[in-house]
Amino acid sequence: MIRSLYFPSKAPVQHELTDNEMKAALSQPDALLWVSLENPDNSETHILSDVFNFHPLAIEDCLNVGYQPPKVDDFGSYIFLIVHAIHADTEMIDLETHELNIFLGENYLVTVFKGDQIQPVETVFRRIKRDVRISQNGSDFLCHAVLDAMVDEYMPIIDKMDQEIEWLEDQVLEKPDPKTMQRIIGLKHSIMSLRRIIAPMREVINRLSRDDFPMIDRQSKIYFRDIYDHLVRIQDLSDTIRDIVSGTMDIYLNSTSLRLNEIMKALTIVSTIFLPLGFLAGVYGMNFSVNYPSYEWDPAIFVFWGMCVAVAAGMLYLFKRAGLF
Amino acid sequence: MIRSLYFPSKAPVQHELTDNEMKAALSQPDALLWVSLENPDNSETHILSDVFNFHPLAIEDCLNVGYQPPKVDDFGSYIFLIVHAIHADTEMIDLETHELNIFLGENYLVTVFKGDQIQPVETVFRRIKRDVRISQNGSDFLCHAVLDAMVDEYMPIIDKMDQEIEWLEDQVLEKPDPKTMQRIIGLKHSIMSLRRIIAPMREVINRLSRDDFPMIDRQSKIYFRDIYDHLVRIQDLSDTIRDIVSGTMDIYLNSTSLRLNEIMKALTIVSTIFLPLGFLAGVYGMNFSVNYPSYEWDPAIFVFWGMCVAVAAGMLYLFKRAGLF
Amino acid sequence: MIRSLYFPSKAPVQHELTDNEMKAALSQPDALLWVSLENPDNSETHILSDVFNFHPLAIEDCLNVGYQPPKVDDFGSYIFLIVHAIHADTEMIDLETHELNIFLGENYLVTVFKGDQIQPVETVFRRIKRDVRISQNGSDFLCHAVLDAMVDEYMPIIDKMDQEIEWLEDQVLEKPDPKTMQRIIGLKHSIMSLRRIIAPMREVINRLSRDDFPMIDRQSKIYFRDIYDHLVRIQDLSDTIRDIVSGTMDIYLNSTSLRLNEIMKALTIVSTIFLPLGFLAGVYGMNFSVNYPSYEWDPAIFVFWGMCVAVAAGMLYLFKRAGLF
Amino acid sequence: MIRSLYFPSKAPVQHELTDNEMKAALSQPDALLWVSLENPDNSETHILSDVFNFHPLAIEDCLNVGYQPPKVDDFGSYIFLIVHAIHADTEMIDLETHELNIFLGENYLVTVFKGDQIQPVETVFRRIKRDVRISQNGSDFLCHAVLDAMVDEYMPIIDKMDQEIEWLEDQVLEKPDPKTMQRIIGLKHSIMSLRRIIAPMREVINRLSRDDFPMIDRQSKIYFRDIYDHLVRIQDLSDTIRDIVSGTMDIYLNSTSLRLNEIMKALTIVSTIFLPLGFLAGVYGMNFSVNYPSYEWDPAIFVFWGMCVAVAAGMLYLFKRAGLF
Amino acid sequence: MIRSLYFPSKAPVQHELTDNEMKAALSQPDALLWVSLENPDNSETHILSDVFNFHPLAIEDCLNVGYQPPKVDDFGSYIFLIVHAIHADTEMIDLETHELNIFLGENYLVTVFKGDQIQPVETVFRRIKRDVRISQNGSDFLCHAVLDAMVDEYMPIIDKMDQEIEWLEDQVLEKPDPKTMQRIIGLKHSIMSLRRIIAPMREVINRLSRDDFPMIDRQSKIYFRDIYDHLVRIQDLSDTIRDIVSGTMDIYLNSTSLRLNEIMKALTIVSTIFLPLGFLAGVYGMNFSVNYPSYEWDPAIFVFWGMCVAVAAGMLYLFKRAGLF
Repeated sequence: MIRSLYFPSKAPVQHELTDNEMKAALSQPDALLWVSLENPDNSETHILSDVFNFHPLAIEDCLNVGYQPPKVDDFGSYIFLIVHAIHADTEMIDLETHELNIFLGENYLVTVFKGDQIQPVETVFRRIKRDVRISQNGSDFLCHAVLDAMVDEYMPIIDKMDQEIEWLEDQVLEKPDPKTMQRIIGLKHSIMSLRRIIAPMREVINRLSRDDFPMIDRQSKIYFRDIYDHLVRIQDLSDTIRDIVSGTMDIYLNSTSLRLNEIMKALTIVSTIFLPLGFLAGVYGMNFSVNYPSYEWDPAIFVFWGMCVAVAAGMLYLFKRAGLF
Repeated sequence: MIRSLYFPSKAPVQHELTDNEMKAALSQPDALLWVSLENPDNSETHILSDVFNFHPLAIEDCLNVGYQPPKVDDFGSYIFLIVHAIHADTEMIDLETHELNIFLGENYLVTVFKGDQIQPVETVFRRIKRDVRISQNGSDFLCHAVLDAMVDEYMPIIDKMDQEIEWLEDQVLEKPDPKTMQRIIGLKHSIMSLRRIIAPMREVINRLSRDDFPMIDRQSKIYFRDIYDHLVRIQDLSDTIRDIVSGTMDIYLNSTSLRLNEIMKALTIVSTIFLPLGFLAGVYGMNFSVNYPSYEWDPAIFVFWGMCVAVAAGMLYLFKRAGLF
Repeated sequence: MIRSLYFPSKAPVQHELTDNEMKAALSQPDALLWVSLENPDNSETHILSDVFNFHPLAIEDCLNVGYQPPKVDDFGSYIFLIVHAIHADTEMIDLETHELNIFLGENYLVTVFKGDQIQPVETVFRRIKRDVRISQNGSDFLCHAVLDAMVDEYMPIIDKMDQEIEWLEDQVLEKPDPKTMQRIIGLKHSIMSLRRIIAPMREVINRLSRDDFPMIDRQSKIYFRDIYDHLVRIQDLSDTIRDIVSGTMDIYLNSTSLRLNEIMKALTIVSTIFLPLGFLAGVYGMNFSVNYPSYEWDPAIFVFWGMCVAVAAGMLYLFKRAGLF
Repeated sequence: MIRSLYFPSKAPVQHELTDNEMKAALSQPDALLWVSLENPDNSETHILSDVFNFHPLAIEDCLNVGYQPPKVDDFGSYIFLIVHAIHADTEMIDLETHELNIFLGENYLVTVFKGDQIQPVETVFRRIKRDVRISQNGSDFLCHAVLDAMVDEYMPIIDKMDQEIEWLEDQVLEKPDPKTMQRIIGLKHSIMSLRRIIAPMREVINRLSRDDFPMIDRQSKIYFRDIYDHLVRIQDLSDTIRDIVSGTMDIYLNSTSLRLNEIMKALTIVSTIFLPLGFLAGVYGMNFSVNYPSYEWDPAIFVFWGMCVAVAAGMLYLFKRAGLF
Repeated sequence: MIRSLYFPSKAPVQHELTDNEMKAALSQPDALLWVSLENPDNSETHILSDVFNFHPLAIEDCLNVGYQPPKVDDFGSYIFLIVHAIHADTEMIDLETHELNIFLGENYLVTVFKGDQIQPVETVFRRIKRDVRISQNGSDFLCHAVLDAMVDEYMPIIDKMDQEIEWLEDQVLEKPDPKTMQRIIGLKHSIMSLRRIIAPMREVINRLSRDDFPMIDRQSKIYFRDIYDHLVRIQDLSDTIRDIVSGTMDIYLNSTSLRLNEIMKALTIVSTIFLPLGFLAGVYGMNFSVNYPSYEWDPAIFVFWGMCVAVAAGMLYLFKRAGLF
């Protein structure tokens, strides 16, 4: 599907332009043309080469289905960006990234994506119709609006991760089990993936806010710088989460070996008390032959029980002294 | 709440200026105006744009409630700083950071914060009234005074952490238990958080002491350099604490497995002695039938006990030779 | 074996040139000569020095049988590249790298390799005959075609590794055993080796796309940049795989100690129940002497069994309360 | 205490100058004045500001009692150095660092320290009286002499650590116990502290040997470079020691778990042999009733013992086959 | 011992020059003088200062007996190199490094070493007499020949390590024992030491091939670049070995805990089967009193054995279901 919006400098906005209208629009330096190719089929992608004349390699990158890290390529009269929207399922186990390809020219913006609708594009598409600030400040400001909406979507993911790790931390302290461990490892993967997306994103935005591109004016750079600060903050928070995840894992692993210690202590106490007692009973069994139910209590019985109590008490005392519990 | 102080070049200090008085003050290059917005409500924040004409993005950063890492933004006629005061609760488990936003212009300083009173601002506010050095050396020196007071508050936190880790180290050597482990992990988190705040703070101060900003003169740079050295020192000390924390954790974890060894040694000794003895008693039980209380001591009894002692001694000897204890 | 192709500027392609024909071809600036030395014997390698006049050190590197990391050497009128094709056996345990030596001059390309046929060279050799784009764009584009085909072969390896680690992850969760561990470690080695090849490859391609070499024109640089992006993507994916491998290893190791805990719990429960019961039976055995098969049931029997049940239930209750299971 | 030495260009050396004599000495560009403030009280420190006119911040750093990392500050007409002498107690558990503050001017050197006598200062003080090379080569050479003597004191510490780790390595292989572990951890801390001092020291000396300071001439730079090489060597050696310490820790930790394996093996062998035998004795005990001392040997006895031997041998055979020992 | 060789530009080679002959040789710009001080005594080292006039610090470094890392010092008319020959004993436990000091001037080379003969020096000494290429290409080419011979000696060490780790890998999989572990740790140390020597060596050679020294002409730089590539390759291979060593260690450590699991499983199975059986035998023992050898088989016997089999089978079934084996 192709959607397009055209803001001529002194005329009302136009929708859904034809190829020829687009070509005409491109020749107006003061106008702004936004074309969005959403899940385009083969009959639609030709406008990238035919209307906009983009470099074959950039078009190939656009249409490639595999994973491609964020990057910025400078082709002189336009720059080509790959950025990533992130979508997290509710359990934070998988982070899905949706690639958004952006061509930013002096007076136009082309956004291309495959697969599901990318929310930030949709959001800006709706806002641009009523918010004159976006449509009147040039293609660089429009590009900033899209990227800003995209980066704004990262924050709720960090928040969700924050809640997940808090819940996991409590879980580990109260009732550690292997499923908790799996969720911790899952969260660790997610945070690692997130960091791997944010780092090149940050680099892309950094270049936009720092390098000199003809289509980005000085004023807009401050806005890209703001997105950059936002990403730094997100990276900072993700570092904190990663640290807490590692700490939680340490507590979990230590709790595993502490439980082993507890289990072995129980076994040791019972064994070291009852093995000697069993031997004692065996030895006495040879010497006695008290016929029940004559109940002729023999003083030797008291000697026997006295020895049992003495052995048990002695063992417990030894453990206590050795500091084993 | 808005507090303001105005030091005209040749007139007595004025308090609590109106918006118009502020505007007038800003036009006096030799004067010094300090405006502090403390937990400002909506009717108060407008002066940032109306009186001082700050950039919308900087104002947005100011009023944002989320966590923002320390940074410095250069807006030409003024610079915008985000710095962090740290507040530690008594158990060092959580480090709270209070964000302080500073606008530093040629002849004014604007400090903005939300939430609780930030102590360094309060401190400098009291000192400036009686210490002419702060009010007479320009806005850069005043900014230095605030930052210096803020960094001075980091040191006691390091000291507290130092005491905590010393106590924990003793605890781990004497009586390691899971609660000690939790405190160690807590301290590790705190020290990591602290390092994550100090690193960008250091970078911010480094830029103030090194880059050329028109509102910071060469003389003041030496003072910012002093704060920078202070932060380097704090980072150094926090590295040391982090190392000791790691070492303490190692001792703790090793003590866990050493205790398991001790427990298992006890179990093994008792089991390997009494299991054979129990068998021996069982075997002899078949052959004897000494009727108690006839006390007819049989030489076989001595053979039995002799074997028991021999088995026990043999087992102990084998353990000793195998170096198991 | 020597294979050669010569594309004169205005004449049909020639095959299998003699030494003198090659020398003649080199003097035509607008033509393109491709010579491929495949597993050359001593009578063939002399053309490197006699016809092309390459530096002795570069020739030595070419003919060296040992492992040599990817690199690019600038000899002024030509550049010398060492790049690596990767071949993985089906089980991903060993990654074999095949070294390809490339001399890139203004109007010629010389490829040299030892051992098995290197697929990318073969592929381009076939394509060049029918794809005029490769033969008409100069030696730099031809070089790009070979390198592109080579880097395209890396991707299936990443895919295979991805499948392997997914299978291993399931295996570890369902039925961890030492062989799984060995395969995880094997995969970890492979991914490490891959990363060690890709990093210098990336650096080589980066230099080709960035530095100024007389035989690489600006237009071709964009194509090398495309290969570079491709390698960045592969490195990114290999980072992800490495993370999952580490996570899988963690789950495996934790599962080992969890199983130990399970085993010890079983032992402890059975021991702590039956050791006291055994003692009890021993003690009662002294006092009873019920002649079977008289079936004279004695109330003491009920007392005995009552005590047994009480001991077992008490032990289980204690374990439950201590949270051991 | 203040000690001072004054070497006029053409007059004999003078001792213990008054404030005014110092001021006079400073005005002689060809002379050399060395003032050493050792544990100065308040009545002595004033000369830093009154006589030498040092910057208040440098003086504050001088008199500060807290830990300060090595650094070099350039104040134009003089440079201010903080360097660290290291003192190790005999057991290497704590490394004490003694801060030495140095002001190096064109024709003077001021050394300031608090606490115990710093040996390198004392050493150079003695040598300067009889070694004309130190007093005749300017303040930069004198400064080099002090720093050289200081760095020379690092080497014996490395040597001591080397001996300690060798002893510990032997200990760990022969008889690992928790005290050894504590000493290893202690040594690890020491080596980490040492590295943290040496790194900034190296940086300080590097700047002295590389940057252009007016009071350090080209000839002296080679001497500072020599100290720098010395520090690189020490850092190298400390890296080696750190590696051996880590390796020793690994051996220790592995020995702990190996011993657990040995202990459990002993327990398992004895248990798995005697538990079945005990059962066997119990079962036979029901069926026999041989009255001792009638010595009527029964063939069943041989059957019983045969079964015992068979069970024991069978168990041992199973263990052997399973490779458990 | 001093050995010297002098190649005048147009006269035959001379051996064993006197001090004065050396001085004369130094004044011939087109000649080449090589002086090798091998294990020199005090009467021989004076030529470094008297004949060659080297800087006292360089001479001190030369004669210093302690360990010194590779470095290059530029003294204007000559450069001073410290490089390391490596000698490995057959078991790879210790890597001995032999320091070689080299002074490289415009028309001379001075090599100095203490201790055993350094093979590369000997090798080049022999080759130079018959290989005119070494003697006719200037001091820089001669220096390259020595360094090349030295770096060529590193490769066999890498090969030996490769064999050792392959053997250890097999050993760990088949029969891991603590001695294997010690050899692995030993190999790890060796590879770490090797890396620590190679890194600065690489840096030294890199500077020779990149920086501008008057005594190294552009042509020779390519040769030093070749040595540099050689060192990069060795470092690459040593990285691979280090990875395999780490992996082998992981397998070993995991095998230790897997064996513990196996041992405990054996103990648990036997204990949980025979402890209940022992109790059963004890209980039945109270009720039976079958007089052997009357062989009056009682149906209760079958009940007893039936219960025994049921308990054992039940336990095994429970284990199976719990997935413990």
